[in-house]
Amino acid sequence: MGHAIVDVLAPSPDGLVAGFGLEKGTMTLVDDAEAEKIYASLGPATEASGGSAANTAACLASLGASVEFIGKVRDDVLGQVFVHDIQSAGVRFRVPPQQEGPGTGRCLIMVTPDAEKTMCTSLGIGALLVPADLDVETIAAAQVLYLEGYLYGSRPTDAVVQRAISAAHDAGSLVAFSLSDPAWVELHRAEIDGLLDQVDLLFANEQEACGMAGTDEIHGALAALGKRCSTVAVTLGALGSVVVRGGEVVSVPAAPMTSLVDTTGAGDSYAAGFLYGVVRQMEAEQCARLGALAAAEVISHLGARPLESLAALVSAAGLGA
Amino acid sequence: MGHAIVDVLAPSPDGLVAGFGLEKGTMTLVDDAEAEKIYASLGPATEASGGSAANTAACLASLGASVEFIGKVRDDVLGQVFVHDIQSAGVRFRVPPQQEGPGTGRCLIMVTPDAEKTMCTSLGIGALLVPADLDVETIAAAQVLYLEGYLYGSRPTDAVVQRAISAAHDAGSLVAFSLSDPAWVELHRAEIDGLLDQVDLLFANEQEACGMAGTDEIHGALAALGKRCSTVAVTLGALGSVVVRGGEVVSVPAAPMTSLVDTTGAGDSYAAGFLYGVVRQMEAEQCARLGALAAAEVISHLGARPLESLAALVSAAGLGA
Repeated sequence: MGHAIVDVLAPSPDGLVAGFGLEKGTMTLVDDAEAEKIYASLGPATEASGGSAANTAACLASLGASVEFIGKVRDDVLGQVFVHDIQSAGVRFRVPPQQEGPGTGRCLIMVTPDAEKTMCTSLGIGALLVPADLDVETIAAAQVLYLEGYLYGSRPTDAVVQRAISAAHDAGSLVAFSLSDPAWVELHRAEIDGLLDQVDLLFANEQEACGMAGTDEIHGALAALGKRCSTVAVTLGALGSVVVRGGEVVSVPAAPMTSLVDTTGAGDSYAAGFLYGVVRQMEAEQCARLGALAAAEVISHLGARPLESLAALVSAAGLGA
Repeated sequence: MGHAIVDVLAPSPDGLVAGFGLEKGTMTLVDDAEAEKIYASLGPATEASGGSAANTAACLASLGASVEFIGKVRDDVLGQVFVHDIQSAGVRFRVPPQQEGPGTGRCLIMVTPDAEKTMCTSLGIGALLVPADLDVETIAAAQVLYLEGYLYGSRPTDAVVQRAISAAHDAGSLVAFSLSDPAWVELHRAEIDGLLDQVDLLFANEQEACGMAGTDEIHGALAALGKRCSTVAVTLGALGSVVVRGGEVVSVPAAPMTSLVDTTGAGDSYAAGFLYGVVRQMEAEQCARLGALAAAEVISHLGARPLESLAALVSAAGLGA
């Protein structure tokens, strides 16, 4: 479950990012006017469907999992693009495109020469997801409910998150949550903290984990978060990832890769690989290896969704169940 | 001058192309309903600005030329994308987005595993370019008026082409014309033939040149077309290109390239390189080498417009004036 977003990807010099007062590697919410201003400064761009949880859903489908995405689009061109891409990736998507309200959400992604991404998002109608959009039976029938962090923290979508989590827990399903963004964590730490005890599986990168735990030091953060959630998986960029599950700590290196082109979707694809392992009842180490494998494919090209079949890569790597 | 189009690029198996009765390597005009049907069958896609002459304009700007594009978009999301991309590539574009009428044109591009492209285009408002959209003074001030073939042949835009050519010739400017597509040539040979004597510089690939000349044999086609236009440049894929100018024939090999990923925009970028040589008063051979260099950059990645500065590549290759 997450925001339905179409990405606008533009290779950009470092100076442009700094010029707008943006911090590299983070996501900033902007209104339509601000988005227009930034878009006008960007070079030629390409458009492709995005959204953090939607990217994770596309990766899960590529891995061979049965997956549904819950989010909201308008009946405009970008909404049509989003629905086409997610469905043709093999993900069910059943919330009907809305005939009124703001347009489909957009995310301007500046990709700097170091392959880092800086994002400016106008959420559009995606922020207007309401509890009535949830099919509670679908959530109850799923093994895992996965939520992107952007949905939670003084947003209109908080009520939807709460209802979805209740539905999942009532049915005995696992609740997974991704912290999404260091700046988001900083802004909404109190609200997210109130949610943590309902989260079974927490995804974060190093900055997000430290920010959430209120420490500068990753080991302390892992210990603190590991007391709140039964599994915590933290990505460490080129250093791989570390998982805390039931008091045990497992480190797994990054997967070998041919090239690093664009880190967009790295965390989203890691979460997908990890979740695929979880629903196949694999050990934490195997889950983390699957996450690393999916992430290596996605960062080897421009765009946040896999170009190759992840199921085939898993099979070739001998990581299948 | 050409159709303003946003491309929808989807990697596709050969079977899909054949299943729609499409011929690989050609462009088919479709109405909105047909376009919807084909789009629904495509896998996940990315969107990027396209249009044959618009791609050529973007390459010319990247080479360092002063260039303006004439075409028409609606004030919709795709129109906004088209205008952003062409202007940020450094091309002037001054026809205001229309507030009424069909949407901005779209081209579904199926990229098969052999890197060939098969296109289905719904022209949208781009087909409604009218003589009043032309700024005759701009055309008169230009060294070259370049027209894509898709604009001519029983289309509503024929009158615009005629007016533009008159304006260019009255001012002593060169008129360049690209045959665009073998199927287009087959359908509109009579109309295009009537235009040839007004064309100073003709661009074609092998199939288009043979189709236009009504022969199966490229040398015969070159001889025939060379009598109609003072310069004829024909691309031969991996074999490079051949130019007929004032009775002389010059062959130039393809430029070395790192990889062949997507031939979309190959002819468009060749035309740009060639035209850049023309406005710099270079010999035919130099013009063809510049065309080959630009094409090598564009086919080395997905998408029809250059990712690297073509001016820098020209300089590195020692091909500058």
